Amino acid sequence: MGKVVVLLSGGLDSATTLGYVLSRGNEAVALSFDYGQKHSLELESGRQIAEHYGVRREVFRMDFSFASTSSLTSSMEVEDRPIEKIGNDIPATYVPARNSVFLSISSAYAETLGFDSIAIGVNALDYSGYPDCRPEYINAMETALNLGTRAGVTGRLRILAPLQYLTKGEIIRMGISLGVPYALTRSCYRNGKKACGRCDSCKLRLRGFMDASSEDPIEYQHLPDFYSSYLENRASP
Amino acid sequence: MGKVVVLLSGGLDSATTLGYVLSRGNEAVALSFDYGQKHSLELESGRQIAEHYGVRREVFRMDFSFASTSSLTSSMEVEDRPIEKIGNDIPATYVPARNSVFLSISSAYAETLGFDSIAIGVNALDYSGYPDCRPEYINAMETALNLGTRAGVTGRLRILAPLQYLTKGEIIRMGISLGVPYALTRSCYRNGKKACGRCDSCKLRLRGFMDASSEDPIEYQHLPDFYSSYLENRASP
Repeated sequence: MGKVVVLLSGGLDSATTLGYVLSRGNEAVALSFDYGQKHSLELESGRQIAEHYGVRREVFRMDFSFASTSSLTSSMEVEDRPIEKIGNDIPATYVPARNSVFLSISSAYAETLGFDSIAIGVNALDYSGYPDCRPEYINAMETALNLGTRAGVTGRLRILAPLQYLTKGEIIRMGISLGVPYALTRSCYRNGKKACGRCDSCKLRLRGFMDASSEDPIEYQHLPDFYSSYLENRASP
Repeated sequence: MGKVVVLLSGGLDSATTLGYVLSRGNEAVALSFDYGQKHSLELESGRQIAEHYGVRREVFRMDFSFASTSSLTSSMEVEDRPIEKIGNDIPATYVPARNSVFLSISSAYAETLGFDSIAIGVNALDYSGYPDCRPEYINAMETALNLGTRAGVTGRLRILAPLQYLTKGEIIRMGISLGVPYALTRSCYRNGKKACGRCDSCKLRLRGFMDASSEDPIEYQHLPDFYSSYLENRASP
């Protein structure tokens, strides 16, 4: 049992991470980041998820609009591409050093609260594209944060990444068994009331529900063909 | 010759770092942080130093007021203590994970600008008290930031700490030879128009000028005994 600062974006992975951390009997405080992300509706999802679990949630605000190379923080359009193309390179949605900034600020919160751990929902699918989701990065950051904080000098600060080696399908299977409120989560990179169903994040999420033999409870503006076919096959086996 | 994001607080160390980086023929952009520090007048010094050197300067804003354990970001008083006591433990002015946050954000700027390096004014004196000024911390952070950024995947991002192994006296000696405008710098942890002359930062700075056989050009409300005696001895040798 530990005391854990859980990074909670409002997406599926971070909600599952929070559900997992709590299921293991840990105390948790959720931390969300309002950094000028295009998909700022995720912050409202974060609020609802924390409320669902009855955990305290803090929002840290900062302005990443200088990051003109990312389609999540600039006027650059979020691109749509076939699901097969996802994961082969660093995508335009990559925000420079985002997890380093988030983990650093989380370590400051953890130290201030007297907490011993930080939990982050990085996972196997992400790290094929985002460098700051790779296990070797997470390990290196844990080393650096321990050297650079009072918490690391007087004790040990751990970074928990419970989803690290799971696919999206495995994450969702685990989350369903833990009762994670997926209807409250939001993964879309666009900020429409309904998820777009066209961006990388929507497609990976929908394929995850397909792989978990389940159905995504949230609403979509559009469903990609692979998911429509899957729903039809489910309806009439 | 490289392209360097220089962390510029407005203090003596960061001004010397900027002067040194420019003296080596590098291109530089200065980055200051407005994080709710009690001594916010340092930001105006940062502006003037950047203007002196004719370099572009960005200010990144965020609110560290959650860090209730630091006397620089909370209502806790900045303490005064004898100079002999400084450096034996982590002081109350330590802001949790500050350099991790600053270096992470700097790496995001560097990547966005297509720059290859970050320079920070950490040094031997600081790291006796602040864990996030130790050489092993800086090295670990460089490793983590390279693993967690596109810049590190496609090239190499370096953290330069040119003052790392210098004492304050050696830093000032170097800075004077480089023409660093120390009259524009500001190191005091308090926010009075004149430097207080009583906090750790003022005392270390004054001892540095003494060790460099020089005189601090800025004004003080009060001068510690060791520095008054030094000035008297200088005046009548």
